[in-house]
Amino acid sequence: MKKILVLHGPNLNLLGLREPDVYGRMTMAEIDQQLQQAGRQLDLEVHSLQSNSEGALIDALQAANQEDAGVIFNPGGYTHTSVAIRDAIAAIEIPVIEVHLSNVDGREEFRHRSLVSAVCAGKISGFGWRSYWLALHALSKILDNISEQ
Amino acid sequence: MKKILVLHGPNLNLLGLREPDVYGRMTMAEIDQQLQQAGRQLDLEVHSLQSNSEGALIDALQAANQEDAGVIFNPGGYTHTSVAIRDAIAAIEIPVIEVHLSNVDGREEFRHRSLVSAVCAGKISGFGWRSYWLALHALSKILDNISEQ
Amino acid sequence: MKKILVLHGPNLNLLGLREPDVYGRMTMAEIDQQLQQAGRQLDLEVHSLQSNSEGALIDALQAANQEDAGVIFNPGGYTHTSVAIRDAIAAIEIPVIEVHLSNVDGREEFRHRSLVSAVCAGKISGFGWRSYWLALHALSKILDNISEQ
Amino acid sequence: MKKILVLHGPNLNLLGLREPDVYGRMTMAEIDQQLQQAGRQLDLEVHSLQSNSEGALIDALQAANQEDAGVIFNPGGYTHTSVAIRDAIAAIEIPVIEVHLSNVDGREEFRHRSLVSAVCAGKISGFGWRSYWLALHALSKILDNISEQ
Amino acid sequence: MKKILVLHGPNLNLLGLREPDVYGRMTMAEIDQQLQQAGRQLDLEVHSLQSNSEGALIDALQAANQEDAGVIFNPGGYTHTSVAIRDAIAAIEIPVIEVHLSNVDGREEFRHRSLVSAVCAGKISGFGWRSYWLALHALSKILDNISEQ
Amino acid sequence: MKKILVLHGPNLNLLGLREPDVYGRMTMAEIDQQLQQAGRQLDLEVHSLQSNSEGALIDALQAANQEDAGVIFNPGGYTHTSVAIRDAIAAIEIPVIEVHLSNVDGREEFRHRSLVSAVCAGKISGFGWRSYWLALHALSKILDNISEQ
Amino acid sequence: MKKILVLHGPNLNLLGLREPDVYGRMTMAEIDQQLQQAGRQLDLEVHSLQSNSEGALIDALQAANQEDAGVIFNPGGYTHTSVAIRDAIAAIEIPVIEVHLSNVDGREEFRHRSLVSAVCAGKISGFGWRSYWLALHALSKILDNISEQ
Amino acid sequence: MKKILVLHGPNLNLLGLREPDVYGRMTMAEIDQQLQQAGRQLDLEVHSLQSNSEGALIDALQAANQEDAGVIFNPGGYTHTSVAIRDAIAAIEIPVIEVHLSNVDGREEFRHRSLVSAVCAGKISGFGWRSYWLALHALSKILDNISEQ
Amino acid sequence: MKKILVLHGPNLNLLGLREPDVYGRMTMAEIDQQLQQAGRQLDLEVHSLQSNSEGALIDALQAANQEDAGVIFNPGGYTHTSVAIRDAIAAIEIPVIEVHLSNVDGREEFRHRSLVSAVCAGKISGFGWRSYWLALHALSKILDNISEQ
Amino acid sequence: MKKILVLHGPNLNLLGLREPDVYGRMTMAEIDQQLQQAGRQLDLEVHSLQSNSEGALIDALQAANQEDAGVIFNPGGYTHTSVAIRDAIAAIEIPVIEVHLSNVDGREEFRHRSLVSAVCAGKISGFGWRSYWLALHALSKILDNISEQ
Amino acid sequence: MKKILVLHGPNLNLLGLREPDVYGRMTMAEIDQQLQQAGRQLDLEVHSLQSNSEGALIDALQAANQEDAGVIFNPGGYTHTSVAIRDAIAAIEIPVIEVHLSNVDGREEFRHRSLVSAVCAGKISGFGWRSYWLALHALSKILDNISEQ
Amino acid sequence: MKKILVLHGPNLNLLGLREPDVYGRMTMAEIDQQLQQAGRQLDLEVHSLQSNSEGALIDALQAANQEDAGVIFNPGGYTHTSVAIRDAIAAIEIPVIEVHLSNVDGREEFRHRSLVSAVCAGKISGFGWRSYWLALHALSKILDNISEQ
Repeated sequence: MKKILVLHGPNLNLLGLREPDVYGRMTMAEIDQQLQQAGRQLDLEVHSLQSNSEGALIDALQAANQEDAGVIFNPGGYTHTSVAIRDAIAAIEIPVIEVHLSNVDGREEFRHRSLVSAVCAGKISGFGWRSYWLALHALSKILDNISEQ
Repeated sequence: MKKILVLHGPNLNLLGLREPDVYGRMTMAEIDQQLQQAGRQLDLEVHSLQSNSEGALIDALQAANQEDAGVIFNPGGYTHTSVAIRDAIAAIEIPVIEVHLSNVDGREEFRHRSLVSAVCAGKISGFGWRSYWLALHALSKILDNISEQ
Repeated sequence: MKKILVLHGPNLNLLGLREPDVYGRMTMAEIDQQLQQAGRQLDLEVHSLQSNSEGALIDALQAANQEDAGVIFNPGGYTHTSVAIRDAIAAIEIPVIEVHLSNVDGREEFRHRSLVSAVCAGKISGFGWRSYWLALHALSKILDNISEQ
Repeated sequence: MKKILVLHGPNLNLLGLREPDVYGRMTMAEIDQQLQQAGRQLDLEVHSLQSNSEGALIDALQAANQEDAGVIFNPGGYTHTSVAIRDAIAAIEIPVIEVHLSNVDGREEFRHRSLVSAVCAGKISGFGWRSYWLALHALSKILDNISEQ
Repeated sequence: MKKILVLHGPNLNLLGLREPDVYGRMTMAEIDQQLQQAGRQLDLEVHSLQSNSEGALIDALQAANQEDAGVIFNPGGYTHTSVAIRDAIAAIEIPVIEVHLSNVDGREEFRHRSLVSAVCAGKISGFGWRSYWLALHALSKILDNISEQ
Repeated sequence: MKKILVLHGPNLNLLGLREPDVYGRMTMAEIDQQLQQAGRQLDLEVHSLQSNSEGALIDALQAANQEDAGVIFNPGGYTHTSVAIRDAIAAIEIPVIEVHLSNVDGREEFRHRSLVSAVCAGKISGFGWRSYWLALHALSKILDNISEQ
Repeated sequence: MKKILVLHGPNLNLLGLREPDVYGRMTMAEIDQQLQQAGRQLDLEVHSLQSNSEGALIDALQAANQEDAGVIFNPGGYTHTSVAIRDAIAAIEIPVIEVHLSNVDGREEFRHRSLVSAVCAGKISGFGWRSYWLALHALSKILDNISEQ
Repeated sequence: MKKILVLHGPNLNLLGLREPDVYGRMTMAEIDQQLQQAGRQLDLEVHSLQSNSEGALIDALQAANQEDAGVIFNPGGYTHTSVAIRDAIAAIEIPVIEVHLSNVDGREEFRHRSLVSAVCAGKISGFGWRSYWLALHALSKILDNISEQ
Repeated sequence: MKKILVLHGPNLNLLGLREPDVYGRMTMAEIDQQLQQAGRQLDLEVHSLQSNSEGALIDALQAANQEDAGVIFNPGGYTHTSVAIRDAIAAIEIPVIEVHLSNVDGREEFRHRSLVSAVCAGKISGFGWRSYWLALHALSKILDNISEQ
Repeated sequence: MKKILVLHGPNLNLLGLREPDVYGRMTMAEIDQQLQQAGRQLDLEVHSLQSNSEGALIDALQAANQEDAGVIFNPGGYTHTSVAIRDAIAAIEIPVIEVHLSNVDGREEFRHRSLVSAVCAGKISGFGWRSYWLALHALSKILDNISEQ
Repeated sequence: MKKILVLHGPNLNLLGLREPDVYGRMTMAEIDQQLQQAGRQLDLEVHSLQSNSEGALIDALQAANQEDAGVIFNPGGYTHTSVAIRDAIAAIEIPVIEVHLSNVDGREEFRHRSLVSAVCAGKISGFGWRSYWLALHALSKILDNISEQ
Repeated sequence: MKKILVLHGPNLNLLGLREPDVYGRMTMAEIDQQLQQAGRQLDLEVHSLQSNSEGALIDALQAANQEDAGVIFNPGGYTHTSVAIRDAIAAIEIPVIEVHLSNVDGREEFRHRSLVSAVCAGKISGFGWRSYWLALHALSKILDNISEQ
């Protein structure tokens, strides 16, 4: 059974606890649980990791390259500022899918630029926790294609 | 059974016929067929429309508001230049999901700005024809939520 | 009796039906009726046309040059993006007055630039449907001046 | 009978005396007279004030808020540079209509940005002294609406 | 005998009728006639099409790919604003030559950027109707080269 | 007893009378009274001045240099536009502290640039009328330091 | 007794040891001691934390939300680059006051933009270690207000 | 004998009293005296005026148009921010020469743009009080030319 | 027989010797020979000159004004950086046609701006050495027109 | 007797011969003669040099540093593009005065930036050939000051 | 024997393992070994450290200031985004040399700006692992100079 | 023995003679001598050339391609403005190393952009004359690699 890393960036540990009107009422733990369940149906073993640290996220991406078949990544605020995370995604070989809970293009000007999108396999944003769920299905299809080759 | 409009913007009628390395080998007709099939499993009736004209796409969005439950929309080159299409999406009440076959953020500078994203329900890009397929599943979940309220 | 074209750009056919708080409760048909009435008092025959298509609006401007004494034009979203419409207004000889229902300068950054203003005879914005009504009075005065010369 | 302030910004005291080809042959005094006449027909008492000083114009706007029902304001060169005047308009409660004699969008780049438009009730530009005359009619309609509420 | 499409963008149907000082005194019909004549000498069958609509121009480019050996294209105002037309040119395989009557670089700032040049086979501007005539000779030579390979 | 000038820029005379939700319910007179009281405890004689005129504010800064030990200055809208006020602050020798009632960085883009901050002794913003109160304490400490040298 | 976190960003551990002409001669430890003393007089328990790591600062802000009544935060170099820290401040409920030792507006261009100011309760800069001391008094007043409500 | 106005903008009344290393040791009164003396040799009657107020400077320019043959103008900080002063210079008919004591192009970025230069007869900067002296000689020559015509 | 100068800018002496895939296999000498031949058919005497020096190119343009009927000019890298060459073209009276071998708009951002286009009679780019050949035909037609007047 | 170099940049050798309406009817030789005459009255030996080449102008500036007491320099088009000339002026010790015949700030946008002004002793522009004449008087005064020290 | 810190920024631990065509085939460990060997010949003790964390790199720079004579630093992706690292380099006294394996100026636009270069002793880029080797020789010479003083 | 060209750009002939605090006390001749000596140890024959002329530098680069194995190039002020020199470097096949004496990134804004870096083999800046010395060692290693292939 292939392993998938769900990587949560800064402040996502506060999900469900703060500003539920904006980010929904589900906690990060509940999202992870939903994704594990959905993963089992797709024959994928989902595990999760959250960090507020740019360096720790890079470490996690590098480690995933050794152990996981793909990454679902919400880079949070680092989306718009981190060349180092972009380089990490470009350096590893497994597919990384960028997800966002909210519609970042409808927010402040400085959130319109994504430094990581150009090196990700795909991007899904604006569907709340369902962004992750859709990414898992996308990843499942991408991995099927790779296996078939 | 709810109706869903799949709206293809300019040049998407050439899909599969031109530059298969970039855009894949599936034709627009084949994508539409796949989506109809997938729609039946989700209890959704999928119909499609393509136009190279900005005005015709606005007409279609306005008409969908009367007849459809949601729209999956690939605005093609108009993504980056059309305030009029943005206004049409903002004016109608049904959810519109923006899709792109390729990773637009990894292409030319002038493709990094999206005028329509801010008013769409969500955005999916970079998964080839699967971007549409994921959008259909996303729309199905959104419509379930609306029905439940 | 001189003829005046009232030319409505994209999405204005939805007036009164959608977002009445922003755009008012009068429909496009009701505005046209009001303008016809007001026109009769000013000895002007008012007729109207709406299109979502940039090309059709250019066609209409060119045709008006043959048949009408002036144009009252709300270019909607094309205000900010259409060099082609600007060129059409510059190419014709009858006066064109730019109108907007809302205060476009108080909205998004990309709405602050008008490509058409520089070639119009004048501009009126922010008075709701009264923007059209004022433009009709302005046009009446301009045409009187032309006649007197 | 409601009072209306016509507020002329910097250099407008030179109207009719300098560059008549650009700004027309009517003097500021003649415009004021025309507006008083037109005001009487609309049951409005029009009085006028001109100043070259940014601070004096702010003083006048604040005073109008105590005594007048509305303001017709041509901010001249301050249109493009004065945050302080913008703040004054935003702070007072009576409607302020921005007018310009010429088509400012057709002139130098630095005249395309208006700092005050976003906080005015509406804007009329390009009709020579008739810009004021149209603004008076617009104000009359706005005040009728307020009274009716 | 190879077929060549001469594609005229928005407002070019007014050629010769309006602003002859800027655009010359020849009408679009006369230019087309001249090009047909010149084409016969180069063993090329020239046919023409004009539209004010962005969508119709894209349709024409796509159709030309099936029937013509090359396109001479004056995109008019769409030169500076249309990503969709750029994509159409990039998607088709026959050579497209961009032409302009006037020297666009000597006009307004917003006319200095061309979205289509990067994907055209070549560009000719500033020679009045002779820009088309030169493009026809250029196309003739390009087609000879292709044939020789 | 050292004298301190509290200098209020444009529109601050409206404090407490307009938009109390944004700027608080205290009038400018009440703030001045509070500062005089607080000044007495710090052995400082506080006097105040308000003007809507850029020139009058420069006059006041120059005069303060002769009579006062320091200035607490809220430049209002001139913060973002006045090189002349910046030059006045740079030219005088007594410390000037910039204060703002609201959080200017959280408002419109054009309010993010301050022309005067670079030449002030310090800046305090966002604490309502307490911004002035804190500035008075800051000034008291600065003057103690100067005396000790 | 309410607890207050004094959070020092990158390189502030070098205070007093390096470049005393720019940053003053007091060490970070001495500042913390002064603030503890001042805190006792205001009935506030002050504790401090310094980190060079963006992630650790976000962790500290999140933890403070559980244990402290407010934060005095000098984000150092992260002020200008960290969207993630901005999001952390926006996500927590206790007031955060931004402080800077030096006058950042008088330094390099890239230091003029603050990403965090818009979400802080207030900002104090330019008073050396007294910036912290003033922030403590500001926080004390804010907490009194909250208690009174 | 022709009259010449020497018009000093904001903060120039402090000349010689403040920052003599930057602006020289001569007071404004001494400069005016030197210019009067030099004027007598050129058969010109020189009189002077200083104001910190933008509006007063505009008033002075307008008045000079009635009484003086030319103006030597140091707009100080208003050079970079005042569209209204630019408009005043453009509106009057007598020649206005822009002078600066220091080399403004070698100072801060925001001092590199001059709004008034484009409408002045000429510009002299960087020669200390001699900038005025040179301008007087320049004006003398210009007036000779005008007389000769 | 009229004389035509073909003026080659910097690095064009390397044509055919370096990067034949980009610039073609013809040497500069071979192009000149082709143009001389083509010139004879058009009754034009073609002579050529190459220089890597901006100043020498300006000298050549000035000299051509005395001896030649027109210039075909490939300014190479100076296209994007030389105001001095622009001024030279503007100062001379004979027509100058700008040519480029490659499609400069499809290359780096800094090549998109042309300082010389605005003052040239026309521009031809992207046709390899045929750009020169087309320019010669264009020049021939322009000279015919001038002769006819 | 001190020597002064008058250094003319690109295209100034065409003075008086081309576009007399813009640049006046005096030739460069006549200007040089006038300056020699005026120099004799000021006890200065004036010699001149013109070049179209950036490198030759740098050579001349370096040579002047050995032989001349000062330079009057009209850098023409290089004013806006040459960092190398700026560096040459900064490297030499004698005063260099920048002159321009026309009012460069009133021309194209790209002429508004001067790279050399910041390192020149002063700048005079807009007075036709009198700009040189004024610069000679300015230089004379500067050299007197240096001698006196 | 003086100690030198070789500090590797984010993702450099992947050297030699990923994208060998771009970054070469040597691993980070092999580079460190080469530098230790080269160091012995220069009488320098080389030790190394790698981290993906911005904060850890700042910690390392601060620690080096206590123990090392100089730093060879490849900041990787933080080069372009970290003001905090810039401040750390500016705060320490030992020389820091910036190195890059690849030619960063030839890559994406956002890599052209370096925030750290301005405060480093020197910069070497584009020579693969030899960039480090050259930096070691540069550092050796700099330390010799310091010793000699 | 392989030949190496050391190419000095504008104003470098003044080295050691002017501003020794900024550029060091060594003359260009002394640097060349040092490099010749160092070259002999590396089995390389070093010869030098200096020019203030952009064109002459391009000539030298082209000539080096025939005679030398590599170039060490300090483009001085042309670094930031010359597309023509960039094209020359791109056109030749031998490696060119860019060197700068000072840290250009720590100087004026317009010196931060390098047009030539992207096409050079590597870049070394900030080490005074040692930048050349390091470049010679770098070139020696690059040439060894090429020989080995």
